[in-house]
Amino acid sequence: MTKLTFGISMSLDGFIAGPNQTLEEALGRGGEKLHEWAFAATAWRKSHGMSGGENNADSDVIEESLRNTGATLMGRRMFSGGGDEPPFHHPVFVLTHHAREPLTLQGGTTFTFVNDGIESALEHAKAAAGDKDVLVGGGASVVQQYLKAGLLDEMDIHVAPVFLGDGVRLFENLGPQLREIECMRVIESPAVTHLRYRVVK
Amino acid sequence: MTKLTFGISMSLDGFIAGPNQTLEEALGRGGEKLHEWAFAATAWRKSHGMSGGENNADSDVIEESLRNTGATLMGRRMFSGGGDEPPFHHPVFVLTHHAREPLTLQGGTTFTFVNDGIESALEHAKAAAGDKDVLVGGGASVVQQYLKAGLLDEMDIHVAPVFLGDGVRLFENLGPQLREIECMRVIESPAVTHLRYRVVK
Repeated sequence: MTKLTFGISMSLDGFIAGPNQTLEEALGRGGEKLHEWAFAATAWRKSHGMSGGENNADSDVIEESLRNTGATLMGRRMFSGGGDEPPFHHPVFVLTHHAREPLTLQGGTTFTFVNDGIESALEHAKAAAGDKDVLVGGGASVVQQYLKAGLLDEMDIHVAPVFLGDGVRLFENLGPQLREIECMRVIESPAVTHLRYRVVK
Repeated sequence: MTKLTFGISMSLDGFIAGPNQTLEEALGRGGEKLHEWAFAATAWRKSHGMSGGENNADSDVIEESLRNTGATLMGRRMFSGGGDEPPFHHPVFVLTHHAREPLTLQGGTTFTFVNDGIESALEHAKAAAGDKDVLVGGGASVVQQYLKAGLLDEMDIHVAPVFLGDGVRLFENLGPQLREIECMRVIESPAVTHLRYRVVK
């Protein structure tokens, strides 16, 4: 059955981007530190058209996510066009307030713009994903909306060994409801700790 | 060498107590969920004068901390007197704004009140700890003060599988400084994930 998942790198103090995000420093001050483990991994480099990198446990985690994901959901601000050949290679659904024609790019990536809410976007993405999973690609507010609505099934939190001190928090605005989750898997590597949780429904 | 450490149970969304703390519900709504793993462990029960419990990886983590800790530092609000025989069984230093006579209770626990700052309290605690470690027993603001001052050496974060949604955040007010940490150990159990980090200095 198709699951709704997300996978995000987070600092131990809970941030997925640092403070002072600018065009030059899109991840904010220190934000690149969250992703060093991914930038070094063969699977990430390959999906971004680069060679080299390390074949390690971190790369396996990325490889697994790429293999299992049939469609991606993302917020409007995450969509930047991504150049001629974006790294998704599958259908992407962009949550937006304004209708817009779909965009088909090289490498099997199509962007479809959905302007009638998160549940509709999820339905479109699930239909496109086939028997694979739908991944929420961010940003934080989109993850929060799906979590709050009780629609998320699983999440991979990649805990990076750094305190950013400030920035964009992943887990806030979740509302007052207590939510039980279950840790399904822990993979540790020298660069990051991968935690997988299932939302108990 | 004596290290300054702390060990705290935290929800995946970063809270060490839930919202709406009252006398009846001191840990706030849902806060007890953070500590279920400890309440069930033999070592915790024994240190609180109770028998029974489970001898598992969680109990070993508590046992290790009890064995390694020679003195505890805590904020004024954490000090409640603790009954006739508090669970520390070693010297405790309480950060306070008002001078007060030390208090000696049964079971080897003495409370000393320090009103000249966190560095002075740490010196007192280190002297009392001998070759063991000094543990910051909370609350969040005391942990934050020691972390911000660059005085913390190691921390055990026990990540409980729950979203509390609101409450007392462990990691905030840390200031704008980027801090690198290093994951030293991961122990997973069905009830909780124990992460140990070293502060890189």
